Amino acid sequence: MRSHLQLTHEPLVIAAPVFPAETDSGAWVDFFGVVRGQEQERAIAALHYEAYEAMARRELERIVNALGVKYPVQEVWLTHRLGCVPAGEPSLHVRVRSAHRAEALAFTGELIDEMKRSVPIWKMA
Amino acid sequence: MRSHLQLTHEPLVIAAPVFPAETDSGAWVDFFGVVRGQEQERAIAALHYEAYEAMARRELERIVNALGVKYPVQEVWLTHRLGCVPAGEPSLHVRVRSAHRAEALAFTGELIDEMKRSVPIWKMA
Repeated sequence: MRSHLQLTHEPLVIAAPVFPAETDSGAWVDFFGVVRGQEQERAIAALHYEAYEAMARRELERIVNALGVKYPVQEVWLTHRLGCVPAGEPSLHVRVRSAHRAEALAFTGELIDEMKRSVPIWKMA
Repeated sequence: MRSHLQLTHEPLVIAAPVFPAETDSGAWVDFFGVVRGQEQERAIAALHYEAYEAMARRELERIVNALGVKYPVQEVWLTHRLGCVPAGEPSLHVRVRSAHRAEALAFTGELIDEMKRSVPIWKMA
């Protein structure tokens, strides 16, 4: 499994996936985590994300490698934006490709669950 | 829940999602089902999809409505291409938006599982 993990302070620019003609990937999943304009009936202009970056990268790598053993996923891209993210903009993009859909969807969900649980990235209103 | 279900004989043209600033959707999922260039070690140039279109539309609507009761998803788009789909091109696109990620991912997976089980769309090599 190839992986591309990135923390960035810039807005996420995500192009639609391009599928190679010779592909062995029948399933592509894109997940976007977007800052909502309200949270518990309170209007939100932006969220602020901070990270302990070196540790966050290491922990993301650990999670991705562990899930890559569990699920036969071919390639994963994960980009998390840090700093101020205005409402309506994505703070997280995950893209996964695999032969079949079940592992791509399960990998995506577990990756984000694990990330929220153990990666030192904090969100503040 | 709003839904947009489409069967088309044209290539799928899918733009990256655009997130409104006032959004209450924190989770966006895109799923692409792509024709693989090989299947069980045999090279594939294309797959051919045929449908009993009127019944397929009705059955898709039924599935989407039932899943919409089960999961608090806000909007779903599903487009299935019919006819000849060359390897490396998507035959299916599903996009789901919801407040939180768990329901978007579960809805997406179950929608495709149910579709494959009961919607009269057939695939031939």
